[in-house]
Amino acid sequence: MTISMRKAIILLSGGLDSTTCLAYAKHQGFECYALSFAYGQRHVFELEAAKRIAEHYAVKKHLIFPLSVDVFQGSSLTDVSKVVPGYSGLVEIPVTYVPARNTVFLSIGLAWAEVLGAENIFIGASSIDYSHYPDCRPAFFEAFQALVRLATKEGVEEGLSFRIETPLLHLTKAQTINLGRELGVDYSMTVSCYQLNERGEACASCDSCTLRKKGFLESGVTDPTHYERK
Amino acid sequence: MTISMRKAIILLSGGLDSTTCLAYAKHQGFECYALSFAYGQRHVFELEAAKRIAEHYAVKKHLIFPLSVDVFQGSSLTDVSKVVPGYSGLVEIPVTYVPARNTVFLSIGLAWAEVLGAENIFIGASSIDYSHYPDCRPAFFEAFQALVRLATKEGVEEGLSFRIETPLLHLTKAQTINLGRELGVDYSMTVSCYQLNERGEACASCDSCTLRKKGFLESGVTDPTHYERK
Repeated sequence: MTISMRKAIILLSGGLDSTTCLAYAKHQGFECYALSFAYGQRHVFELEAAKRIAEHYAVKKHLIFPLSVDVFQGSSLTDVSKVVPGYSGLVEIPVTYVPARNTVFLSIGLAWAEVLGAENIFIGASSIDYSHYPDCRPAFFEAFQALVRLATKEGVEEGLSFRIETPLLHLTKAQTINLGRELGVDYSMTVSCYQLNERGEACASCDSCTLRKKGFLESGVTDPTHYERK
Repeated sequence: MTISMRKAIILLSGGLDSTTCLAYAKHQGFECYALSFAYGQRHVFELEAAKRIAEHYAVKKHLIFPLSVDVFQGSSLTDVSKVVPGYSGLVEIPVTYVPARNTVFLSIGLAWAEVLGAENIFIGASSIDYSHYPDCRPAFFEAFQALVRLATKEGVEEGLSFRIETPLLHLTKAQTINLGRELGVDYSMTVSCYQLNERGEACASCDSCTLRKKGFLESGVTDPTHYERK
């Protein structure tokens, strides 16, 4: 361990990807600050998972940022939360898309990074096995990186040089799981399902479950997810 | 009035610039949605002003978005709120700078825009008479515009085409005030001071007051601001 560790912020949803990202950042030697967002009831299990994972990895601080998406009530956001469709396999943007989500998340991550003096902001997005959200594409992250240089003191004064880190961007879900296995990630701690039941069991049919199941199958790693018995 | 008015979001702080922006958008024929942020006690008078102004301009909806910057406590943000320096005139970033503020504000504005189907997002930033915040420079807004195309469904599917509108970007404060006069803006409704006293009177000495006073002086318009008697 060095005297002055480099700080990193990790966007931590409590899911498979963000947990792998945290394990990766930790392995790289960063002093880790986890950032989660509370933005709806559906995410209670996810946030509980995020808390356990942050604790497991002994992050320096875990910030749960309340984001009032309920103020958008009457919008598609609220309706979206009611109906989660099964996996379609179509190459189009699903209704589970939350408007400008990664832009909002990364912006708040950037604000915290500037406050902390943390130069590296990790996000576990993938552009391979993903739900075709526009803000998961490599070009989006390149544009955000360009923005960061102009949005902060960095662009005016010498000092911090912020970097958006996307180590999973070009990995399949199976490759991410294999990376996590090498890093010793216990995926039973993580939650991916969009619509867990009241016992916290995964539905096995939503977009997120489908990608997760496929990932474990292809990776050869045993899937530790608790699926609902039907 | 057209049958289907174009919708616009206006970031409304309750200050001189954002109010001029709202008047401008209204004059352009937009159906206006005002977006303010509640992010600290100092802004109570500002938010009250924003409410009055939003009502005055009969916006379709005024959303006050709570932004928990207090979760960054222990950071410079909190300390910053305690000490507001006098106007320095220096070409450097003052300590009143809020990390990544316009990035966060515009991101949430973009999310709301996508929900509402509002293509135009107005922000009353100026790169002439301003406090040298990095996120008020033209290059910052250009980078955000580039991001917007990639961050939203727009970049993937046909449909909405979001635009960050900065009508005051190249105006001096005096030019903004003259524009406002043409649009019939009552500037006594607006609040600019960083440190109003308990009676809501402006300090006349902070960065924001100094730029405002200078603007009124140069514009020839009578300054309606209530300054603290010293």
